[in-house]
Amino acid sequence: MDIERYISERARAVNRALPVLAAQVKDPHSRLVEAMLYSLSAGGKRLRPVLMIAAYEVFGGKASDIVPAACALEMVHTYSLVHDDLPAMDDDSLRRGRPASHKVYGEALAILSGDALLTDAFTVLLSSKYPSKIKPGALLAAASILSRRAGAGGMVSGQAADLEAEGFLRSRGEITPARRRAGLKQLSYIHLHKTADLIMAAVEMGAALAGAPEKDFRALSEFGRELGLCFQVADDILDVAGDKKKLGKNGSDARNRKLTYPSLLGVEGARARAEELMRSAVSRLAEVNGSAAAKGALAAISGFVYRREN
Amino acid sequence: MDIERYISERARAVNRALPVLAAQVKDPHSRLVEAMLYSLSAGGKRLRPVLMIAAYEVFGGKASDIVPAACALEMVHTYSLVHDDLPAMDDDSLRRGRPASHKVYGEALAILSGDALLTDAFTVLLSSKYPSKIKPGALLAAASILSRRAGAGGMVSGQAADLEAEGFLRSRGEITPARRRAGLKQLSYIHLHKTADLIMAAVEMGAALAGAPEKDFRALSEFGRELGLCFQVADDILDVAGDKKKLGKNGSDARNRKLTYPSLLGVEGARARAEELMRSAVSRLAEVNGSAAAKGALAAISGFVYRREN
Repeated sequence: MDIERYISERARAVNRALPVLAAQVKDPHSRLVEAMLYSLSAGGKRLRPVLMIAAYEVFGGKASDIVPAACALEMVHTYSLVHDDLPAMDDDSLRRGRPASHKVYGEALAILSGDALLTDAFTVLLSSKYPSKIKPGALLAAASILSRRAGAGGMVSGQAADLEAEGFLRSRGEITPARRRAGLKQLSYIHLHKTADLIMAAVEMGAALAGAPEKDFRALSEFGRELGLCFQVADDILDVAGDKKKLGKNGSDARNRKLTYPSLLGVEGARARAEELMRSAVSRLAEVNGSAAAKGALAAISGFVYRREN
Repeated sequence: MDIERYISERARAVNRALPVLAAQVKDPHSRLVEAMLYSLSAGGKRLRPVLMIAAYEVFGGKASDIVPAACALEMVHTYSLVHDDLPAMDDDSLRRGRPASHKVYGEALAILSGDALLTDAFTVLLSSKYPSKIKPGALLAAASILSRRAGAGGMVSGQAADLEAEGFLRSRGEITPARRRAGLKQLSYIHLHKTADLIMAAVEMGAALAGAPEKDFRALSEFGRELGLCFQVADDILDVAGDKKKLGKNGSDARNRKLTYPSLLGVEGARARAEELMRSAVSRLAEVNGSAAAKGALAAISGFVYRREN
C-alpha cells in the first residue's frame, strides 16, 4: 500500500475543509480569525485527523463522513502548539518553519487565538452536518472523548508536568541509576498525557463515530496509546539529532535542558524504545475486527511515525 | 419574591457541585487541578449558572436537573477571567478579592489551568448524568450554544476587540462627537461579545435543555443580550465609581485608559443607558410563555444586576 499517498489524500481533504470550517464564525474579530488561520495553515502532517479517518474506515465508514470531526481534532492540536510556544511556556519562536503565532500577532492575540481554536473545535465537531448513520449519541461520545483526552485528565496535565520537568538535568547534575528510574517514570507520565492522549483521542473518536464494538474500541485505544508514546520518543530524538531545517523548529528541549528519552537513555537507547513501542502498537491491530486495508494503513502510519524525519 | 434567597439557593447548589465535577478528572497533575479549584472557589455571584437554571425553570424544569450544565458554564466564565488577568492581557493582580491565578501559580500554570477549565467544561457538560427527559439532541444543542457563544464568533472576539481598544483615550486626546459615535459603536461590539454572549448562552442553554419552543427561545435570547449589555455598562461604572473593597479588584480599566461607557458618556449618562437596557430586557419576558415565578426571578435578577455594588 502506498502509505504516503493514503495519508496525503486524507490530509488534503482535511486541509481543504479546515479553513472553511474554522472561519465560518459569525461576526468575528478579523485579526483574531487571521491568527487562527495562520496557525491552522502552517501545514504539518495532519497525523491525528488521518488516524481518526483510518480508524473510522476500519469499521467500513467513508473518509468524507467525518472530515469535520477530523478538523476539530486538528484545531485542538493546533491550539496546544500555539499555547505551548508562548514565552511563559516553551518560549519557541519558530513553528513548522514559520514564526510562532506570538511572534507575528503578539502574546495576547496568540493566547486568544489558542482559546478560540479550542472552543471552536467543539463548534465544528458538534454543529457540522454528518450522514444520518452518525447518531447524536455517537457524536456526544466523540465530543466527550475529545474533551477528556485534551483536558486536565489528559493533554493539559501532560503540559503541566512537562513544564515542571524543565531544567531537570540542569538542576540535578549527573544521572544516577535511581535518578534515571525516577526520570523515566516522570517522563512516561508526560509522554502519555502530553502526546499520546490526543493520538488516542484520534482513533477512539474514529471508532466511536463508527459505533465500533467495545472490544475493538479498547484495542484501538491501546494501539493509539503505544503509537502516541512512540511518536513522542521519536520527537525527542529528532529534537536532539534531527535536521533543524526539516523540523522547522529550534530544538528548545535541549536548550531548556528538558527531561527526554535521549537525555536519559542516549539516542540509541531511545531509538530502541521507539521501535519497541511501534511494534507493540502494530500488534494490537490483530485484535481488531474490520477492514484489512484500513488496518494496514494504521500499521503503515505507525512505521511512518517511527521513521519520520520531521 | 425574595430574590437574594432565590439566587443564593441556586448558587449554593452550583458551589457544592462545582469542585466535585471539576476535580473528577482521572490521573491529573495535582498542582494544575489545585489552580483550577483555586479560581473556581473564588466565589462570585454565579450569575450565569443561576440565569441558566431560572431559564430552565421557566419551562417547568427543576433546578437539580441541570446543575452540571450550569457548572460547565461557570467553568467557561472562570477560564475567561484567568486568561483575562494574565500579564499579556489586562495584567490584573487581584480577582474577586484574592491574588489572581498567575500571581499564585505563575503565568504558565495560569494559562494551562484556563485551558483545562475550558476543555473540562465540555467534559462536565457532555459526560454528566441528566434525567432521561433531557435527550442527547438537547444536550448537543446546549453544547453547541456554549462553544459558539464562547468562541471566535463570541466571547473571544470581544476580548480581542477589547484589547485593541486599550489606550483608546490616551492615544486620541479629546473626544469629539464623531469620535464618541465611533467609540460607542466599537464599545457595543466589545460589550456584546465580551460579556453579553456568555449571558445569552446561559438563558439559551437553559431553554435548549428544557426543549423550549423557538419563539420563547428567541425572546429569552434577546432578554439575555440586553441583560448582558446592562451588566457590562454597570461593570464599567463600578470600575470608576465603585467601592474597591466591595469589588475585590483594582479597577484596571481606568489605569489602562480603556474605552468604557463612563469615559464616553460620563457616569450619569452611563447609568441612564444601563437602566434603559435593564427595562428593555425585562420587557422581553412578557413574550415568553412559562412559569410566572421563574420569569419573576429573571426580572428580579435583572434589577439586581443593574443595582449591584460588586
